[in-house]
Amino acid sequence: MSNNTSPALQVALAYHNAWKNLDHATAMKVVADNVVSETPFGPIEGGAALHKSESEFAGMLKGATMVAAFGDEKTALLMYYTHTHPVPSVLSAKYFTVENGKITGIKALFDKSVFGAQ
Amino acid sequence: MSNNTSPALQVALAYHNAWKNLDHATAMKVVADNVVSETPFGPIEGGAALHKSESEFAGMLKGATMVAAFGDEKTALLMYYTHTHPVPSVLSAKYFTVENGKITGIKALFDKSVFGAQ
Repeated sequence: MSNNTSPALQVALAYHNAWKNLDHATAMKVVADNVVSETPFGPIEGGAALHKSESEFAGMLKGATMVAAFGDEKTALLMYYTHTHPVPSVLSAKYFTVENGKITGIKALFDKSVFGAQ
Repeated sequence: MSNNTSPALQVALAYHNAWKNLDHATAMKVVADNVVSETPFGPIEGGAALHKSESEFAGMLKGATMVAAFGDEKTALLMYYTHTHPVPSVLSAKYFTVENGKITGIKALFDKSVFGAQ
């Protein structure tokens, strides 16, 4: 893990750390209202929809273990294991686009088939 | 995309670019014999097994478009869209561990359910 001077990585880690601690309300403090997310279940448009989706997911979330975290001025890329109640360890990645200190874009990636979804 | 001075990223990109051009034999030039890969279909141990798997996958591969590429001295992390014949665009990420100029570890991530696999 490096690039700790990346402003986008600082924002992404603030989001990620709140998220993994099941506190998505705090995570939302660094999310733009018009955020657009790409997820394995399809696109999620807007902060309210993202917060609803992640708040529901928090019910099965236990935490996360970082594999790698990188960033530059406006983007950040994380890979980590997501720990959930149904599946202990799910390799995951998230790419963040950051503007003016807020997350405006997320590409979230994991293999949803591990949850039995198609 | 940044960190072009990262030696691990140079190696990862050499691998990735050969792979996306359907030339996994060239990609193998920067892979250690004892490479261990984590994939959505399970672990792959050793360079020969990796080459066999990727050579088979090349039959459905059309190319890739980079989203982000980062690295430091010994690791690199890529996110990209994989273009395949059955599915036009599959969000993917790969994490590389590099030692002495050769890839010794890969964590490959995509949602295998898009290919109808579980």
